Amino acid sequence: MLTLNKKRSSLFTSLHSFKLLETEKLSDVSEVKSLFEPRSVVLIGSSKIREKVGMTSPWLFENVIHNMNKFFEGKTFVLDIGGELDYDQLEDLPETPDLGVIMLPPKASIQQSERCAKIGVKALVMITGGYKNRHRQRLTSIKREYGIRILGPNTILGIINTANGLNTTFERDVMPKRGSISVISQSGGVGALLLDLACFYDIGISKFAFMGEKIDINDVDILRYFNEDPETKVICLYMEGIEKGREFVEAARKIVKKKPILALKGGVTKEAARRARSHTASIAGSDIVFDAAFKKAGIIRVGDAEELLNAAIALAKQPPLRGDNVAIVSNVGGPAILAADAVVKNGLKLAHLSEKTRKKIEGCYPGVDAINPIDLIADARAERYSFVLDLVLSDPNVDGVLVINMLKSCFFEPEDAVAIAEIAEKHSGKPVVDVPAGGEDFTLVYEVLRDTSIPVYNLPEKAAKALKTLRTYHQITAG
Amino acid sequence: MLTLNKKRSSLFTSLHSFKLLETEKLSDVSEVKSLFEPRSVVLIGSSKIREKVGMTSPWLFENVIHNMNKFFEGKTFVLDIGGELDYDQLEDLPETPDLGVIMLPPKASIQQSERCAKIGVKALVMITGGYKNRHRQRLTSIKREYGIRILGPNTILGIINTANGLNTTFERDVMPKRGSISVISQSGGVGALLLDLACFYDIGISKFAFMGEKIDINDVDILRYFNEDPETKVICLYMEGIEKGREFVEAARKIVKKKPILALKGGVTKEAARRARSHTASIAGSDIVFDAAFKKAGIIRVGDAEELLNAAIALAKQPPLRGDNVAIVSNVGGPAILAADAVVKNGLKLAHLSEKTRKKIEGCYPGVDAINPIDLIADARAERYSFVLDLVLSDPNVDGVLVINMLKSCFFEPEDAVAIAEIAEKHSGKPVVDVPAGGEDFTLVYEVLRDTSIPVYNLPEKAAKALKTLRTYHQITAG
Repeated sequence: MLTLNKKRSSLFTSLHSFKLLETEKLSDVSEVKSLFEPRSVVLIGSSKIREKVGMTSPWLFENVIHNMNKFFEGKTFVLDIGGELDYDQLEDLPETPDLGVIMLPPKASIQQSERCAKIGVKALVMITGGYKNRHRQRLTSIKREYGIRILGPNTILGIINTANGLNTTFERDVMPKRGSISVISQSGGVGALLLDLACFYDIGISKFAFMGEKIDINDVDILRYFNEDPETKVICLYMEGIEKGREFVEAARKIVKKKPILALKGGVTKEAARRARSHTASIAGSDIVFDAAFKKAGIIRVGDAEELLNAAIALAKQPPLRGDNVAIVSNVGGPAILAADAVVKNGLKLAHLSEKTRKKIEGCYPGVDAINPIDLIADARAERYSFVLDLVLSDPNVDGVLVINMLKSCFFEPEDAVAIAEIAEKHSGKPVVDVPAGGEDFTLVYEVLRDTSIPVYNLPEKAAKALKTLRTYHQITAG
Repeated sequence: MLTLNKKRSSLFTSLHSFKLLETEKLSDVSEVKSLFEPRSVVLIGSSKIREKVGMTSPWLFENVIHNMNKFFEGKTFVLDIGGELDYDQLEDLPETPDLGVIMLPPKASIQQSERCAKIGVKALVMITGGYKNRHRQRLTSIKREYGIRILGPNTILGIINTANGLNTTFERDVMPKRGSISVISQSGGVGALLLDLACFYDIGISKFAFMGEKIDINDVDILRYFNEDPETKVICLYMEGIEKGREFVEAARKIVKKKPILALKGGVTKEAARRARSHTASIAGSDIVFDAAFKKAGIIRVGDAEELLNAAIALAKQPPLRGDNVAIVSNVGGPAILAADAVVKNGLKLAHLSEKTRKKIEGCYPGVDAINPIDLIADARAERYSFVLDLVLSDPNVDGVLVINMLKSCFFEPEDAVAIAEIAEKHSGKPVVDVPAGGEDFTLVYEVLRDTSIPVYNLPEKAAKALKTLRTYHQITAG
């Protein structure tokens, strides 16, 4: 392991070597705005053309049309190349759309891009992949010539905005719940994984940007837009490579003071990095450089897609953890011990409850041993949780609380969890996370707490990690 | 970090210091057999007595009666202390039961234990907790005097055996599917968490032993029984402390040659270990000592409850991984890159496909780039998976395969997954694990593959860990 100083110096030398693809001025936020907030959109695909291996398909096209018609609040036009749906010429549209979504094989996509640029479309989402270098160069020159902004190619799923219903994905009827987490994913597949998790667990999402190859619009453009976007509170990144590394770090550094940024990095090992090159044409770069860049930028790095969303939920719902001292309040012994292990392994501490708190708890519940982790015993219901949680959150020795409320082997009922959310809201400066550990237990309690401000995790280890994220974010904003 | 040699030497010096509670001869398997395979059982509780803080409750008693009547194939008698259900005297029972299950406050439990011992009951499951040292001593002396075997106290959930329907838990109607994974949990709470996960994901379980305080029957007794049990193929352990450390290591060492043992250890940090002492009266011992003991015993250590079951499923369903070389076959790019990262991080390698394999794949599917990880492209269906997977598993350079088949952002349909199981069975010497990454995607594909021999995971990182477990187990059995 390198020391922090060593990491920093390797960052400074290495960031210079990031490949700068473009030296043009960075777009202002208003240009990227058309990607997420177009008044009207033209979908350009084909009800006839189907690639043998590839993503151009009438079925895909039909699904995007379906989703846009179902969810989008603005106007949607459809241009069917070689087919019979709606318009067959861009020039026939009754108005110039702000955004074009193109889902044809590379050559045909490029032709349509240029036509869009010519009539004044402001931004393009390029869905399909399979581009060769000559295709990429042609797209770049269209961007240069007309000033049109391009997302992709190979974005696969394009853009989702839950505020206006924009949804260029071909996942029929898939639309996450409106919320405050925004996601930038370089990979369509990882983006789809995050989208699937978000929908399945009903996680509140503001926006999704599936980046693909980033020949024009890059992470920095989207980050700046999210920074200005009042709907976005937390930003999640999946990235394989990066362009304009220095600019990225500088932009992120400013943004994290206001909105936390979380990152999952793919292509960490050299074996995977080789594949990343052919996947999204990105230079994965040394992992140590990335790690240092993330630290310098104040970006919180996570280990997998679940961790990314678990951390985002904590940041979206709870305040930062202002000190290291965590209390564990549980109705079971073993999982509380696992939680205590996880708290300490994450660099946090088990809070020492004040004498006053302990005496009050043990005075009211003689069977309860109020040493942290506090074991409320398996017959604890809402009343005992409320009483103890209120005291613990009032204790100045406690900075945050990890609550465990299992159903199996206990008397706790799902509706008892409401009390946890109520008490937590009384003490809104200190984070509270909840663990109904397990499968069914998690599902039943999650149903009750999902729309409250309490993050819910199915294992104590995940809740401890969430608290660690809240601690790290406090250090980022305070430091 | 200590080197392996240092760990070994610290093990040898430290194992001597494990507290040996008893010096009596170790039970043979037949004594413990009554715990899992009784012909008849007496449930001793009360429809009247309810502890203010504690687990004695008419509701709990009623649920255990319900479960035993519903699931247990042998005879169940009910003794209702101070109440009116069925018998009120042990001596009135028409026959002497093999097993007594006692769920009363400590003092009353001890009284009933002695009466059971006197009439010749062979084993007892002590459900409730709250025992003081004098209670424990009294129980120990009953065991000594009468030779009756005692599980607990404070087992909370007692015993489950899916083969004969024995189920002493008070979780009404909760019974896992019959299968080959057996679990020993020192903690009722962690046991309940594992039980809940097992039921929720329909994981095949053979037996559960909720150990509690282990004043008599300990992990070694149960391990030896599981070793002889034809239904048990994989053993999962949750433990906080251990008695008879040397004996445990020696017993495990022999067993793992035939059946893998996985362990989750609670009380790893000294803060949590302190709580473990009061929780299950166990001496948690130094974590380094445990780690060394597990290694010496050939026990595979895991990090949390999900990892424990994920590893168990892999070992129950797939052969060991006989070499380091893993191929990744995927319909998405990003998750395959995350998988490649995870494979390498777990100390495995990305297989170099033979020229022959590559040419055949690329010859048939010109759009596919058959460098590992192999990206089949988002429109791959069963046919392309079958063709490629068959070639990859036939390649001598490949020891095992991690398959990714997402639905979101892809054309793959859940029923296509059947083809993966079929091809994998043709090559049954090499493990195959499957990742329909996400939430809904995982659920839909899991539904299709659940009852096949293919382990299914919702993230590539979890599948890579499962392959690592299969590799480790190969090294344990070969070494």
